[in-house]
Amino acid sequence: MAKKFIAVIGGSQCSKKEAQLGEEVGRELALRGAVLVCGGLGGIMRAACKGASSAGGTTIGILPGESRQSANPYVQIPIVTGLGEARNVIVVKSAQAVIAIGGSYGTLSEISHALKNGIPLIGLNTWSISRNGRQDKSIILAQSPIEAVSQALELARSEE
Amino acid sequence: MAKKFIAVIGGSQCSKKEAQLGEEVGRELALRGAVLVCGGLGGIMRAACKGASSAGGTTIGILPGESRQSANPYVQIPIVTGLGEARNVIVVKSAQAVIAIGGSYGTLSEISHALKNGIPLIGLNTWSISRNGRQDKSIILAQSPIEAVSQALELARSEE
Amino acid sequence: MAKKFIAVIGGSQCSKKEAQLGEEVGRELALRGAVLVCGGLGGIMRAACKGASSAGGTTIGILPGESRQSANPYVQIPIVTGLGEARNVIVVKSAQAVIAIGGSYGTLSEISHALKNGIPLIGLNTWSISRNGRQDKSIILAQSPIEAVSQALELARSEE
Amino acid sequence: MAKKFIAVIGGSQCSKKEAQLGEEVGRELALRGAVLVCGGLGGIMRAACKGASSAGGTTIGILPGESRQSANPYVQIPIVTGLGEARNVIVVKSAQAVIAIGGSYGTLSEISHALKNGIPLIGLNTWSISRNGRQDKSIILAQSPIEAVSQALELARSEE
Repeated sequence: MAKKFIAVIGGSQCSKKEAQLGEEVGRELALRGAVLVCGGLGGIMRAACKGASSAGGTTIGILPGESRQSANPYVQIPIVTGLGEARNVIVVKSAQAVIAIGGSYGTLSEISHALKNGIPLIGLNTWSISRNGRQDKSIILAQSPIEAVSQALELARSEE
Repeated sequence: MAKKFIAVIGGSQCSKKEAQLGEEVGRELALRGAVLVCGGLGGIMRAACKGASSAGGTTIGILPGESRQSANPYVQIPIVTGLGEARNVIVVKSAQAVIAIGGSYGTLSEISHALKNGIPLIGLNTWSISRNGRQDKSIILAQSPIEAVSQALELARSEE
Repeated sequence: MAKKFIAVIGGSQCSKKEAQLGEEVGRELALRGAVLVCGGLGGIMRAACKGASSAGGTTIGILPGESRQSANPYVQIPIVTGLGEARNVIVVKSAQAVIAIGGSYGTLSEISHALKNGIPLIGLNTWSISRNGRQDKSIILAQSPIEAVSQALELARSEE
Repeated sequence: MAKKFIAVIGGSQCSKKEAQLGEEVGRELALRGAVLVCGGLGGIMRAACKGASSAGGTTIGILPGESRQSANPYVQIPIVTGLGEARNVIVVKSAQAVIAIGGSYGTLSEISHALKNGIPLIGLNTWSISRNGRQDKSIILAQSPIEAVSQALELARSEE
């Protein structure tokens, strides 16, 4: 059966607790045979790649800059885009489901692109969004890394 | 004095009321000498371009597709990117301030990119966002098209 | 009748003679009512914008970087992409015909994208390309700025 | 030692002979431990991925469209960009050296981007380019797939 590609998104700077969540998500994804897609830099991205690598998983980093050297040391497949933030779209589109952990405005842009494209989006302590006073329920809330990974793998789009 | 470039973002489909807001924003921007930047398609984009054109303003449409023909009829300067949603980043970066009206996930991605880049973002009946139960106050709320335009022109980044 | 959008491409550094060609092309385009599209930086781009401005024309600069300040002083409509070289595609796609003057590898990439998209490409002292020992005749050679502009306007794609 | 990432570029349609060259290049790259980067579609891309897969290599496809389903069946790591031709830049920048086989204008754009970025470019029956009547010698000519792979691996940029 084909491997599933799951993106982990979050801040390039993050708290210790968030990093721990990221590492657990990465490890669990690897243990369950998924390929990790991320933005390739620090913070949550580094933590998730570290977790996945520690469990023998494959890690892809879609880099915003011009150099493969900018990838964190746990990225095995660096993709060099030179596109700046426009690379966020690629992180999301290359995944069959996305797990968001914390994050700032860059992460929010990725959440938006995932929802726009109908890619399942699981959130761990991340943004919530509302319009006209009503909360948008499209962000699927998870309470733990294991739950986030389970939901991501279950909901991962297979048709595309 | 140099003209100011202001983006108007919002859904490619919108309610009549939103379209009216968009048209008023476009007209007011033109009357006050600003250049309108938008995504070039329908809905709010069309309404804003229509309003700006009616007042003799300049309208730029940053198109996602491959053809200048996809622009709404009020776009004077069609920019053909062929980049799909990744063009959202260009709409935002080409503006010195951004006015968001209503909108769906594409608009939310543009709001995110604007906030990430420190570009002033004025909201009219648009998304609100929060993290850890606290609302993010970076979206500047306006109550009317004229107020939105006034704030956008006042806050427009001039240094860059 | 709708204005025609013509791109002028060439090196960001160029010889005095090339700059003179660029300026004449820009001026002639403006005199004949066309809108100038270019990459917005120095060299040929600056020269063409200067020429067009001197004749009252409109100039658009599709910038690779993050700041509108990077545009040459004759760009009236700066489009800020933040995409690096990937913006070359946008310069070409936003034009109905392209005039190449001299240029290095960046210009060659734009020539390639124009030919790939079926956009008429007029060359003034620019690259020639061949495959299997046979020259590719798709680059239309012009002997002077006026001839280049005439051909560009005549061949400009109107359908798209 | 870190694996080397080598791009193979060429037409999405190609002759039988070119496909054979592509397959041999792919296989040789895999046998020598390199990771194959390509545009993920048919023709030369498919042939190279098939060759690499047959020898147990890793294959990355940087897709222009919106769906991972558009990848040829030998792509193991599909990257979904949605950027159209602008993805050509990513193919090139993600590689430490590039091998061009035959190809049309899209390939020529990739050759241009490689040369512009100082990425070694090895050519097998591909474009030749000249300016002012003088041939540009930056395209390194190879006579066989094995020679092309040897040169690509030897010249592959390691610093970046």
